[in-house]
Amino acid sequence: MTATAAHRFDVITFTSDFGIDDSYVAICKGVLRRFAAHAEVVDVTHTVPAQDIRRGALVLARTVPWFATAVHLAVVDPGVGTDRRAVAIRAGDSVFVGPDNGLLVGAADALGGPTEAVELTNTEMFLRPVSATFHGRDVFSPSAGQLAAGCHLTDLGDPLDPATLVRLPTPRIETGNGNLTAEIVDVDTYGNVQLATRLDHLERAGLSEASEVKVTTKGVVTRALRTKSYGEVPPGTLVLYVDSAGALELAVNEGSAAHALGATIGDDVEIRGD
Amino acid sequence: MTATAAHRFDVITFTSDFGIDDSYVAICKGVLRRFAAHAEVVDVTHTVPAQDIRRGALVLARTVPWFATAVHLAVVDPGVGTDRRAVAIRAGDSVFVGPDNGLLVGAADALGGPTEAVELTNTEMFLRPVSATFHGRDVFSPSAGQLAAGCHLTDLGDPLDPATLVRLPTPRIETGNGNLTAEIVDVDTYGNVQLATRLDHLERAGLSEASEVKVTTKGVVTRALRTKSYGEVPPGTLVLYVDSAGALELAVNEGSAAHALGATIGDDVEIRGD
Amino acid sequence: MTATAAHRFDVITFTSDFGIDDSYVAICKGVLRRFAAHAEVVDVTHTVPAQDIRRGALVLARTVPWFATAVHLAVVDPGVGTDRRAVAIRAGDSVFVGPDNGLLVGAADALGGPTEAVELTNTEMFLRPVSATFHGRDVFSPSAGQLAAGCHLTDLGDPLDPATLVRLPTPRIETGNGNLTAEIVDVDTYGNVQLATRLDHLERAGLSEASEVKVTTKGVVTRALRTKSYGEVPPGTLVLYVDSAGALELAVNEGSAAHALGATIGDDVEIRGD
Repeated sequence: MTATAAHRFDVITFTSDFGIDDSYVAICKGVLRRFAAHAEVVDVTHTVPAQDIRRGALVLARTVPWFATAVHLAVVDPGVGTDRRAVAIRAGDSVFVGPDNGLLVGAADALGGPTEAVELTNTEMFLRPVSATFHGRDVFSPSAGQLAAGCHLTDLGDPLDPATLVRLPTPRIETGNGNLTAEIVDVDTYGNVQLATRLDHLERAGLSEASEVKVTTKGVVTRALRTKSYGEVPPGTLVLYVDSAGALELAVNEGSAAHALGATIGDDVEIRGD
Repeated sequence: MTATAAHRFDVITFTSDFGIDDSYVAICKGVLRRFAAHAEVVDVTHTVPAQDIRRGALVLARTVPWFATAVHLAVVDPGVGTDRRAVAIRAGDSVFVGPDNGLLVGAADALGGPTEAVELTNTEMFLRPVSATFHGRDVFSPSAGQLAAGCHLTDLGDPLDPATLVRLPTPRIETGNGNLTAEIVDVDTYGNVQLATRLDHLERAGLSEASEVKVTTKGVVTRALRTKSYGEVPPGTLVLYVDSAGALELAVNEGSAAHALGATIGDDVEIRGD
Repeated sequence: MTATAAHRFDVITFTSDFGIDDSYVAICKGVLRRFAAHAEVVDVTHTVPAQDIRRGALVLARTVPWFATAVHLAVVDPGVGTDRRAVAIRAGDSVFVGPDNGLLVGAADALGGPTEAVELTNTEMFLRPVSATFHGRDVFSPSAGQLAAGCHLTDLGDPLDPATLVRLPTPRIETGNGNLTAEIVDVDTYGNVQLATRLDHLERAGLSEASEVKVTTKGVVTRALRTKSYGEVPPGTLVLYVDSAGALELAVNEGSAAHALGATIGDDVEIRGD
């Protein structure tokens, strides 16, 4: 099916909002096997909230730096059946396959940014007939599988300018003198609250030396200790630290910061010195 | 353990109601590895509602056509420890292993129907002693593993007439002149409502040309647009289309049809023209 | 990285409280692949309740006897970032990697008890810089991967006396004349209630011949039939039997014993004859 062998991939990561109850994930794995039986499929998550592109994009972007080289298949696709583009993107030594709706670009950025992209226009690479509602099965899995088997990006369709790829809005960050306001970009399994900021934002706000800060969410002010981890404080204590991805994170030892703050993804958090 | 090598399988799919919190799934994988370390195990789902044979059968039947050849291990087994039969069934180029309670036959039908079946009576193929409550570990996984390793179906026990395999009741479908009543057979992760009908039922009811239909569930009438997909209508709109499995499905763009209709698996839906 | 090849492992089992929604599990799998791309990773569970060491320990101990030889990676680690030790333990033909907080020892006991242990003090084997909050990624996965690739336990750090490994409290069991009180150690997906007892406790209490027993939880007395399985009684009946792990278990056919008894993990159950 491919003109010349490009590069085989041994790993296909798979991210979706298909859930874990239905047949969708296994069906895609069956299709991937048709084209790339040699490749190991590593599930990232399939419990992205239904059609929540932003959450899918975040989890994917967090994951991909830890895979040296892989095909990253991602399907959170509210626009399936409309004219949104289906794309494949190269970044670093990996390739991404999915809808052009913002799901993939942040992860490509995490690998240094897109260096090449195509629209999946070569219908010969699809399962046919292509259904109107399950491009994960009919379009994206065959494309990902064939990339893993060594086809070229350009075997899948027409080149497109990576600058035209759909991007999600940048999360809000505002740095003042002695304060910092940032959007909550994630709440994880433990209720840890991740902010759209890194340590340098705290430095810019002049807060990097503070041993304690005031955290305001929805008008309510709480104190948080500046620590390296949640493990070093008494249970129930709110702490602010640099998390394992380099972002600022709020946590409660043996508790949930999201619950303590009554805050969720998309809310703003203001951090001030004493 | 086998008389002559029959055919090795590289893939074992695994469907159960074991959940994802307990040790049951991993234990079975440990047992599968003892007999077939070469085979890849692909999880279909393990969150079938406890002992819900019908849901397990549906997900399995949806999945198997996408695997060219595999051992399909499925365990939803409320009758474990009673005299329900344990069976292995051949259909197409694949084999099924599980309890004879209706879980497997629909999936075998999806591969052309059972062509051979045995009751798992050869206790030498089991882990012994066989527990009274975990045949997934002691009976089905060893049998599936040994089939994957190349044993014959008849190495596992006595042949039985496939016509005697337990079958689930056929879902209700009634086609009238200008109307169609069908049972809801599935509600998926997105809240999409799948009916026990295909496009030809709509044609038989004279409704295949309608651009809009009336949908009645539990006495409440709602309008649904006939479309190819949910992506092409405004958010919140109820649509009726042929889904990726060829069944008629109701969906709400960016919403849940199950929620909108207040309907669930087993309920009837009536569809009429204007 | 290792002085001499010790023994490669083909399987790495993976147990954690990382959940299935976030990137943590896939990140660890990416790291494992860097060191042991040949090894298959078998997920035990990742839905251990956040930081519930006891539940993680129980599921792990149940699982490991079914794997002939494996690296068992387990991360439920409320003490990450504190001075709790990180350890690797040998037991039987397998090795364990994780925090020294009681998570691993019960599973090592299930393989005959720890025969060798090291503290993970060799920082050259870690991903660096080591984060304060994600030792699963930076410490445990690299160590597990390198063990799977054939490094020696002692390549990972300084030997420690297995007798000093942190152990969880032993569950409560009291055997009287004609009665038995035991702690609930687990409630599974089906609502089956597992007690910290085996058949010999029932024998010691003189109850092994009883066809029916009285079960008291939180002051409420219920009758339970002594059976081999839940499948052999009418729906709704409470039964007491020896489960597939050899423990005494209470179950309700087609129902949840936990719900019927209003009992949960950590509660005491008293069993008496008539």
